[in-house]
Amino acid sequence: MTKPKVFEKPTGVKDYLPHAVSKLRRIERDVLACMRRWGYEQIMTPTIEYYDTVGVASATSDQKLFKLLNQRGTTIVLRSDMTAPIARVVGSLLKDERFPIRLSYHGNVFRAFEEEGGREAEFYQTGVELVGDASPEADAEVIALAIASLQAAGVPSFKIAMGHVGFLNGLFSETLPGLESEQEALKACLLQRDHVGYRDEIRKLSVDAARQRELENILRLRGGKDVCAQALELSANEGARAAIGHLCEVWDALEAYGLQEHVLIDLTMIGDFSYYTGMTFEGYASQLGFPVVSGGRYDNLLAQFGRPAAATGFALKTTRILEVVGDAAEEETRVLIVYDESERKAAFADARHRRSQGQSVVTESFSAANVEGLKASREFKDGTFSYKGKNYHGLVCIGKEAEGWV
Amino acid sequence: MTKPKVFEKPTGVKDYLPHAVSKLRRIERDVLACMRRWGYEQIMTPTIEYYDTVGVASATSDQKLFKLLNQRGTTIVLRSDMTAPIARVVGSLLKDERFPIRLSYHGNVFRAFEEEGGREAEFYQTGVELVGDASPEADAEVIALAIASLQAAGVPSFKIAMGHVGFLNGLFSETLPGLESEQEALKACLLQRDHVGYRDEIRKLSVDAARQRELENILRLRGGKDVCAQALELSANEGARAAIGHLCEVWDALEAYGLQEHVLIDLTMIGDFSYYTGMTFEGYASQLGFPVVSGGRYDNLLAQFGRPAAATGFALKTTRILEVVGDAAEEETRVLIVYDESERKAAFADARHRRSQGQSVVTESFSAANVEGLKASREFKDGTFSYKGKNYHGLVCIGKEAEGWV
Repeated sequence: MTKPKVFEKPTGVKDYLPHAVSKLRRIERDVLACMRRWGYEQIMTPTIEYYDTVGVASATSDQKLFKLLNQRGTTIVLRSDMTAPIARVVGSLLKDERFPIRLSYHGNVFRAFEEEGGREAEFYQTGVELVGDASPEADAEVIALAIASLQAAGVPSFKIAMGHVGFLNGLFSETLPGLESEQEALKACLLQRDHVGYRDEIRKLSVDAARQRELENILRLRGGKDVCAQALELSANEGARAAIGHLCEVWDALEAYGLQEHVLIDLTMIGDFSYYTGMTFEGYASQLGFPVVSGGRYDNLLAQFGRPAAATGFALKTTRILEVVGDAAEEETRVLIVYDESERKAAFADARHRRSQGQSVVTESFSAANVEGLKASREFKDGTFSYKGKNYHGLVCIGKEAEGWV
Repeated sequence: MTKPKVFEKPTGVKDYLPHAVSKLRRIERDVLACMRRWGYEQIMTPTIEYYDTVGVASATSDQKLFKLLNQRGTTIVLRSDMTAPIARVVGSLLKDERFPIRLSYHGNVFRAFEEEGGREAEFYQTGVELVGDASPEADAEVIALAIASLQAAGVPSFKIAMGHVGFLNGLFSETLPGLESEQEALKACLLQRDHVGYRDEIRKLSVDAARQRELENILRLRGGKDVCAQALELSANEGARAAIGHLCEVWDALEAYGLQEHVLIDLTMIGDFSYYTGMTFEGYASQLGFPVVSGGRYDNLLAQFGRPAAATGFALKTTRILEVVGDAAEEETRVLIVYDESERKAAFADARHRRSQGQSVVTESFSAANVEGLKASREFKDGTFSYKGKNYHGLVCIGKEAEGWV
């Protein structure tokens, strides 16, 4: 094993320079403010959690968890999402808080190092959890808030695809009774959005042509509310029909929000079946091939933390959203003050005054100044000039020497 | 080894509930804005770093580093401060950026689990680094900014103690030439602020009474600028005198800022000698027994990342500051809208309008409402009422049913 070079950092993690930080912070601020306006209060939890509690409860597959051992030999994880830690808090510190509980967060989450494929080991998520409300309106509220959050983040164009794990579970148990591994194979294809593979799997099944057609028809279940009617025709299974009924109610509530243009029903869209228990959704920005938000209902998680409760929520993939939004607007006037040593007190007082007015001010004594640079800096361009590699909007000279070069 | 309980989290880490998050976020926002007004641009670096690069370069002692192994067998650390990662970035991504470079940060840092003593394993720091400026004015700028940052954070009363590692190094090498381990023992006492232990160590020394007195007199070197004159009488050592000269210039610059009332010179105050190379300082809030800010000059660190440069900076102990500042002011009006199912669209439109005005709005259908709770909620108190455990400033009822209970 070779030693890392001095300037190297671990695979899959990033430095954010000031320009990127401004963007990320602007998104963080505006999205959290949006969530606050919907009554969601912000919470923060630790970076590290016990594997045996939050680790195993999380939606992240075991091999993707970032595990480590503490000095007592207990397995620790770097949190892989914020949902399981929040469930832990709802079951402990907030155990006397009445439902519904509305919480928001912004935080970094981790995946085990992936040496290949350039996947990120650390990235940011901003999201909400609505705990203690099983109604379709609660699901609609989190989808509506996901849409408002994407808008607050500045994502120019996106579409939310909404499904329900109960539909496929019901339909498969009706169509392929007892064939668990076949069902799993089909679900795995849908999870990967691999429709070719899905059709291949269907052809391998020893079921009649009518059933094969039924299974293939699932792939067409994408669109507006009419998809629900088509789905009801496809399945007589009680669970599947209840799922569709729930989805219709979510759709109606989204119509009441006036948001139907942003949403489509996609019954082929499935999240992690071991985790989600009802409605699930994903949001796609038109410029990107991967989701910028995902969420859904997870009514079984809270019980693992001693407080059984219905829950629904979502996480924005904030780091990905960075790629599709514009730059943060410049918020301040940056001024350079150059001063004679003898006028230092006056210069510092001027700087203090300007800072109290919200300006960003750098001070430099004339003796330390690069006079050639200062001369060049007289070339203002679009209202700014550059000096020692930084842009300024104004130059203030204090004292005879400092004024002398002008 | 017993399994952790479901609601447990690792030793030394914390959950922050909404009330604490509001405070922490308010401090973070105001301090970073203050730093921006001084020309410092924000940077973010990864939570994990290589032990062989950032880990060994950090000011944190090896046994306090939070270490783990990655899948390739390389030792990783959870960052213990932000200074070493920023030095890495200045030596790599920013290697073409001209000096001086002014950077700010807010981030969580880690210490190895300490099972005893209740020390924190994860906590927040907010700070700056000024790289590429060796002048006393640069040191004064970071102290002045530390003071402005404590004020921005809302710390009501504090004092900055300023010292210089060069003074004690020079004085000890003059007074105790060649007695390295004795020098280390004395420094260790000063680092712990253990003056009794320091006097005991002096008595153990086989040096004459005059030297013993000299060493004891160090303990009195605390106060205003006059301490510098006393110190110059105490030592003829060139390094010690140069240190005092530098400190006088820093003091003069702080006077030009008008900040001398917040600062005292304390030549017994030492930081980590293996790390700091010049001026060091610590800030104490009057209510707390531990520092709320610490910093100093570290001119040897950047060379370890391939770009030798003078550097000075500080870190606010943001998590500790939480304990001494008041609550965040309430920033929004919170409104509950209760509506008839038939008026849902109107209710959502009203919520949308109020949110666009900056209000925080929770909506609830009348059928889901707790009518007894609503009745009780009519009891406004100090302009707010409580419903389902949440405080609201206003109640809006939309539709006949929802209005009916009034």
